Amino acid sequence: MADPRFFRKHGPIKLGEIAKLAGAELAAGVDPERAIEDVAPLETAGPEALSFFDNPRYSAALGASRAGACIIAPAQAQRAPAGMALLLSRTPYRSYALAARAFYPRQRPPAGIAANAMIDPTARIDDEVSIGPGVTIGANARIGARTAIGANSVIEAGVEIGADCLIGPLIVLSHCLIGDRVTLHPGVKIGQDGFGFAPDPNGHVKVPQLGRVIVGDDCEIGANTTIDRGAGPDTVIGAGTWIDNLVQIGHNVRIGRGCIIVAQTGISGSTRLGDFVMIGGQGGVAGHLSLGDGARLAAKSGLMHDIPPGATFGGIPAVPMMQHHREVATLQRLARSRRKGEQDG
Amino acid sequence: MADPRFFRKHGPIKLGEIAKLAGAELAAGVDPERAIEDVAPLETAGPEALSFFDNPRYSAALGASRAGACIIAPAQAQRAPAGMALLLSRTPYRSYALAARAFYPRQRPPAGIAANAMIDPTARIDDEVSIGPGVTIGANARIGARTAIGANSVIEAGVEIGADCLIGPLIVLSHCLIGDRVTLHPGVKIGQDGFGFAPDPNGHVKVPQLGRVIVGDDCEIGANTTIDRGAGPDTVIGAGTWIDNLVQIGHNVRIGRGCIIVAQTGISGSTRLGDFVMIGGQGGVAGHLSLGDGARLAAKSGLMHDIPPGATFGGIPAVPMMQHHREVATLQRLARSRRKGEQDG
Amino acid sequence: MADPRFFRKHGPIKLGEIAKLAGAELAAGVDPERAIEDVAPLETAGPEALSFFDNPRYSAALGASRAGACIIAPAQAQRAPAGMALLLSRTPYRSYALAARAFYPRQRPPAGIAANAMIDPTARIDDEVSIGPGVTIGANARIGARTAIGANSVIEAGVEIGADCLIGPLIVLSHCLIGDRVTLHPGVKIGQDGFGFAPDPNGHVKVPQLGRVIVGDDCEIGANTTIDRGAGPDTVIGAGTWIDNLVQIGHNVRIGRGCIIVAQTGISGSTRLGDFVMIGGQGGVAGHLSLGDGARLAAKSGLMHDIPPGATFGGIPAVPMMQHHREVATLQRLARSRRKGEQDG
Repeated sequence: MADPRFFRKHGPIKLGEIAKLAGAELAAGVDPERAIEDVAPLETAGPEALSFFDNPRYSAALGASRAGACIIAPAQAQRAPAGMALLLSRTPYRSYALAARAFYPRQRPPAGIAANAMIDPTARIDDEVSIGPGVTIGANARIGARTAIGANSVIEAGVEIGADCLIGPLIVLSHCLIGDRVTLHPGVKIGQDGFGFAPDPNGHVKVPQLGRVIVGDDCEIGANTTIDRGAGPDTVIGAGTWIDNLVQIGHNVRIGRGCIIVAQTGISGSTRLGDFVMIGGQGGVAGHLSLGDGARLAAKSGLMHDIPPGATFGGIPAVPMMQHHREVATLQRLARSRRKGEQDG
Repeated sequence: MADPRFFRKHGPIKLGEIAKLAGAELAAGVDPERAIEDVAPLETAGPEALSFFDNPRYSAALGASRAGACIIAPAQAQRAPAGMALLLSRTPYRSYALAARAFYPRQRPPAGIAANAMIDPTARIDDEVSIGPGVTIGANARIGARTAIGANSVIEAGVEIGADCLIGPLIVLSHCLIGDRVTLHPGVKIGQDGFGFAPDPNGHVKVPQLGRVIVGDDCEIGANTTIDRGAGPDTVIGAGTWIDNLVQIGHNVRIGRGCIIVAQTGISGSTRLGDFVMIGGQGGVAGHLSLGDGARLAAKSGLMHDIPPGATFGGIPAVPMMQHHREVATLQRLARSRRKGEQDG
Repeated sequence: MADPRFFRKHGPIKLGEIAKLAGAELAAGVDPERAIEDVAPLETAGPEALSFFDNPRYSAALGASRAGACIIAPAQAQRAPAGMALLLSRTPYRSYALAARAFYPRQRPPAGIAANAMIDPTARIDDEVSIGPGVTIGANARIGARTAIGANSVIEAGVEIGADCLIGPLIVLSHCLIGDRVTLHPGVKIGQDGFGFAPDPNGHVKVPQLGRVIVGDDCEIGANTTIDRGAGPDTVIGAGTWIDNLVQIGHNVRIGRGCIIVAQTGISGSTRLGDFVMIGGQGGVAGHLSLGDGARLAAKSGLMHDIPPGATFGGIPAVPMMQHHREVATLQRLARSRRKGEQDG
């Protein structure tokens, strides 16, 4: 069970209800009235808990698990130990996510405004907001209904935040418009000047950064990530895009809907990502590029050319993934044969 | 026009005046008395706005632009649509920067000290400073004239900050001396202990970090960047050096004047950079190296040896750029021929 | 001498006493009663200061040094200038660390609780803590004896911090348990949601992150580093592990004792590190991997497979270090011969 110091559990919930809300189907013979108390990983789940199986790496854990119930793909069902109540789903992880959210709904801080928050009288604060201690909110800013802002965060003048957002502690927002249901994790910095200047041996000349950052609805942005405002155009994060920790987004970057950008990735200025683009951890993307809808860039890659829609690239410099694998294999083969040659010679 | 919620525009300004302050020359026939209202990107500029053309990627945008005036290199002037008033400059981006700054001078918060700032009575605070809510300033610190410090920043004891600096919100400064006209973006952390210890299976032994960080005049340092103080010598950032977001500078690093260090770069302890060194995004530099004046390291590279003055290196491990390109091309050729051999065979 | 604005020096200390506390031996003829005033780098140390020699790169500095005393390995002793008092140690850097700590003991802020700290009445605060201005401490949190918390840090509900910790300013801790004698540098973020969701074109589905972060005793964690809480299992940082700045640790990662993780490294979810693992700067480790006790990963590498205990891997993708060196050499040779062929041809 999740540590009650940090999490409040709901339930029990019956298997039939879980199947319904999770988009899963009960396997033959499973009692829909059976009550489940909690969710847990395969290793620690007991007979009253629901778990899930999604990664073949963990087949041994599945076999040894004491979980009372498990969400699993139909094709994998025969791997489960006898007696485990199975909930069949083609997307077990998604189904598990929905089930787990029923047991552990997202906790929101209670509505209220800390006595020592510094809110400019011209700011527009909607109903039921939660504003933590030490927060400052500048002139003409707007905070949407039911949005929470964590302690000591700084919302600069003119910033607009939609409804139902979770803005963590120690965040700075300036020159930006944030949609509804956005989650920003601690330490996010959005809207500061981009790295825009004309290099000059007598002193680099700063270019005023006159754009904004537009963050769409339902985005999630990780801890200590930085997003610079546009230089003239805006920097745009499309609705439903998820960005991990310590990511850098340069000025004028436009990211489409539903993208996934893993930790420590950097995207240079004026690059455009289509919808549902995925970039692995520590990816690097040069400026002024275009990544088509559904494009993927492998972790640790360095992209210097466009990626067409749906294609997967990898390597430094990044090339189509098949070519990258071939290059890696070729070099390994050549290095092996050289060594063999040396040993033979 | 830049969003008036965030930016205050000056002007109009006559073309003749713009040319003068931007170091540009009016093309033949351009009326120096013509008034310009604003600056804007080529795509969105209207007949009363000034734009610029600097990157051949955007030739189509130039051709289609409705901008009334445009700063452009003499050699590119023939690409501009007829009727556009041209301002000729060999450094169009620099000239545009100067023009844009006339329309949008840097905004400084009004002078004043927030009622709830915690300022040690021994701190020396010069005139016309702006100190935001929740700021703490330690014993014997010094804040120069007209310097602004954003909300909830922490200035530890003994720190000295020069005049006309913009210190953003949520910044921590300790063990450091900051020059004049320095800009620190939100979340910068300067002066904490370097990663200095003697590894030991019975417990790593911390080495007291007894140096400081010295940041020269006119530096700009990006959001969430970290700069560790020296271990004995100081960590030094030379005047006019610009550092992007999420960069890591290790202890004892000495960086010269006018360097440009792009986002997510890491420079390990005791390495020295000469003047006007450039490091691309996600660059990595090992410790105890020397990069000569004007040296360049390509984005995503990993440097393990010195770079002579003026040379450009790239790759992992980084080698002279020509050699790096040759290595990349060689591997691509070998992988292609292997594939061809397989298909033929 | 270290800048007295920032450091308070103890001493003088006699050479005999220094040798004892540093685990070193006085070379023949050195007077144990000789008083040493300070520690300093070879370049700046004067006749009353102690320095150390550990890196052959600095042989010239040793030869030219005016240091009165120097800690040095017995095998290197003949490199020292005549007249320098030598303290012999097989681990000169470790010995120097111990000596320097005698001159410069770690400074702790004086005990006391800032008047404007917001401490929940249910929080348990032990004796002699130091809690800075603007700190917020949530319900049922626990702060151990003699622990210091820097200005404007945010300790969320339920968090437990042990004794004698140094928690810097502008830190956020949630869903975590922190051991004794832990140092967290400014800007660390621990315990936020991991990047856990089921990707879905109709909106990624968040998976509740129900684990915690457990940080063992004697850990040190660098500025702006982020550590996500577990998804179900905990994220664990073993006792005595040191983590540098801007590192990302994903959910469910388990790190053993005494590991060293250099700046800007990223470790993906559910990976396990044994004890005394070392990862160089900007290292990247994929998820669900295992690095055995004493494993090493070279800087800038990208690891996609397990590392057996004691082995060293490097490269992207990372391979055993010997193989990596061979691959690099092979490619350099092929590129050279290709060029030669072109010039000849």
